[in-house]
Amino acid sequence: MARPARPDLAAMMVPLGRSLIAAELPILQSHDLKMWAYIVLLELREEPTRTQAALAQAIGADKTRIIGVLDELAERGLIRRTPDPQDRRARLLAITPAGKRLRDAVQRDIQANEERLLARLAPADRRGFLRGLQFLAELPPEEIAG
Amino acid sequence: MARPARPDLAAMMVPLGRSLIAAELPILQSHDLKMWAYIVLLELREEPTRTQAALAQAIGADKTRIIGVLDELAERGLIRRTPDPQDRRARLLAITPAGKRLRDAVQRDIQANEERLLARLAPADRRGFLRGLQFLAELPPEEIAG
Repeated sequence: MARPARPDLAAMMVPLGRSLIAAELPILQSHDLKMWAYIVLLELREEPTRTQAALAQAIGADKTRIIGVLDELAERGLIRRTPDPQDRRARLLAITPAGKRLRDAVQRDIQANEERLLARLAPADRRGFLRGLQFLAELPPEEIAG
Repeated sequence: MARPARPDLAAMMVPLGRSLIAAELPILQSHDLKMWAYIVLLELREEPTRTQAALAQAIGADKTRIIGVLDELAERGLIRRTPDPQDRRARLLAITPAGKRLRDAVQRDIQANEERLLARLAPADRRGFLRGLQFLAELPPEEIAG
């Protein structure tokens, strides 16, 4: 049988993902934001809903690692923590207007760099690449494993 | 300004890459091959050319980590090591016919699972996704950073 016409998906995606993360770091730094803090701001909504434990699980972070990140975001007025009326030991989290402004500014800078790369693709490839990537990224991990 | 219409590329690609790696592991195991051994087999050619140091650098592996992997591949007759005529302390590496057969069998299984996922995309998206991914994956990391 002939050899496959393309590299394995993971062999292309893992190093490219690493390079894209590296490209985000100076942008995050220019906004004085750590990667985990950015991920938290992306995850939170305006209505306080998530407990710290649920947030840590949703973003795949260690619960203890996230505490310092949340403390710093709260001190900078980027998130708000309120006691959970259902469970006084738990705290609900929400993003503040200042947090949203910072999150959006960082994301605009990150995606401006990404658009510079995507502009090198033919328009049909750019569209198919983004649609395909978004579809596959939304599949549950267990469907990927088959 | 409006929020971007899509997640950041790295936010989609890094977890998806991780899931694709996880999907490879049982396939590799069914062929009794470790991930690094598979990566070595993908990298080597039939003509002995690479020294162990050059191979380790090419695949981004630690030089000491790779030695045990190469020993095992050589014992199983999947790679061949010959002294470098230019430098008697160095050794050249090549894949054997048995190594090629195993590499191709593993890659066929891995890509069969990937094709199952890609088949869920519309044909134009599948084509654009693969063309876009291959183009971006071949860019030097320093071009990604901008």
